[in-house]
Amino acid sequence: MIKYYNVNGEIVPIEKAVINVKDLGFLRGYSVFDFFRIYKGQPVFIEDHLARLERSTNELGLELPYSKAELVEKIIALAKANQMEEGGIKIVITGGYSLDGFLPTKPNFVMLASKLTTYDESVYTKGIKLMAYEYTRETPYTKTTNYLKPISLQQEIKEAEAFDVLYHDGVYISESARSNFFIVNHEGTIITPDKDALEGITRKHVLEVAKKHFKVEIRPLSIKETMAAREAFMTSSTKGIMPVRQVDFWRINKGIIGDTTKQLMELFRQHVEEYVGTKV
Amino acid sequence: MIKYYNVNGEIVPIEKAVINVKDLGFLRGYSVFDFFRIYKGQPVFIEDHLARLERSTNELGLELPYSKAELVEKIIALAKANQMEEGGIKIVITGGYSLDGFLPTKPNFVMLASKLTTYDESVYTKGIKLMAYEYTRETPYTKTTNYLKPISLQQEIKEAEAFDVLYHDGVYISESARSNFFIVNHEGTIITPDKDALEGITRKHVLEVAKKHFKVEIRPLSIKETMAAREAFMTSSTKGIMPVRQVDFWRINKGIIGDTTKQLMELFRQHVEEYVGTKV
Repeated sequence: MIKYYNVNGEIVPIEKAVINVKDLGFLRGYSVFDFFRIYKGQPVFIEDHLARLERSTNELGLELPYSKAELVEKIIALAKANQMEEGGIKIVITGGYSLDGFLPTKPNFVMLASKLTTYDESVYTKGIKLMAYEYTRETPYTKTTNYLKPISLQQEIKEAEAFDVLYHDGVYISESARSNFFIVNHEGTIITPDKDALEGITRKHVLEVAKKHFKVEIRPLSIKETMAAREAFMTSSTKGIMPVRQVDFWRINKGIIGDTTKQLMELFRQHVEEYVGTKV
Repeated sequence: MIKYYNVNGEIVPIEKAVINVKDLGFLRGYSVFDFFRIYKGQPVFIEDHLARLERSTNELGLELPYSKAELVEKIIALAKANQMEEGGIKIVITGGYSLDGFLPTKPNFVMLASKLTTYDESVYTKGIKLMAYEYTRETPYTKTTNYLKPISLQQEIKEAEAFDVLYHDGVYISESARSNFFIVNHEGTIITPDKDALEGITRKHVLEVAKKHFKVEIRPLSIKETMAAREAFMTSSTKGIMPVRQVDFWRINKGIIGDTTKQLMELFRQHVEEYVGTKV
């Protein structure tokens, strides 16, 4: 049971985790965040997440309100307060309490803990369906809080009996709403888009692991090539590696999860275990 | 001195005007707003603002939490609480306290009062400079809280010694960051873009007034045509009609404010007086 969040450095009960409505994240969407898993009480790939959070914060002309060492301390403290062995933590950094409702000031810092989203086992054994959608995020490399588009699309996604969207620009695939996208082609090469996609931390680690066993390419990935793929999957901190069996009406590998995806899922599981093992 | 806001229907001192960080406007930018002037204690063009707020809210699949009559009551009450004869009120409606941090629930409603932004008199007598910038808002017809781009551009705007940006798509002008844009051509026709621009309430009323005295066209407005304009101005609830004397390096009418703009400023001032007069 999650009972505590952190607001501007203080651990507080959730019902007291409030910010004033003058906050520039609330009023103007001037806000970035990062999210990572807690596994065996440890934040997973935390150096990467904090480095990205710092990049996002700097993109907005803001500074991290704490050093990275202080942030790790605060993360561990919040996980402990919630007796959280497994879960997720989100850090939000906003433009602060603006005087004129437009110009940023001293950032506000919020840390939310959550139980990890659980998916039906079939998602991993049978794969998911994505709905192709033409859209490019405004700031694809910065993890802003702007999720208006995918939230607005929820009804359409449901009606399409899809799990999520697959963004493209009419020719090239970029990413899913909260996940990176990969294919495996018939030569067994693993390919993920190089442009207009968030630099996912799970993506980074999956690529690292994959390189040891497979040919890997980070380059433009067309819709056409995706339709001809032998396998497909997506990655995120919440989902890990999630097989994709279908995009709109085209089934991939006749809807059967491929061996490369299965092998990567196992290799990535081991990689996370090793990471946490060295930390514990 | 502004001392009170309204949060979910209750008037509260500003320091107690808080929302929980689980709010979907805060976490995911799932939020719309509207802003209008209070003049002689009355909200100006309020029917239009509330109609647009309802459209914005519906675009997000949300409902207005109060009837329009109730909203007007609450607006008047907040103006009274703040002893505000002149000022501005912003209403924000968000996706509410989401259970999973993604799907909207019962909306949160926030109303903020503010002193009206005042500009140096020279802004109206000498006009302002805009910085041309290639950008189209994701949802130009919905008044969302996504202002990441113009806030990020503040430094660049300052360095260009400009007052604000002028968005275009490489060929056509759309709008400024928080204002609509108009030109007057050498035939004396008033032209404002028909696409990718917010349907401003001041824009609507300026067009209404202008139609009685001038030829008016709402249609695509190219950068080329803007460069050749005889006059230019922008409109917003905060700014009213504000003359534009320069865009990047091209001066309009040698930097002198044109007669049509001056005449419209006076006609619009009378129009607002008449509106408020019928209400008081």
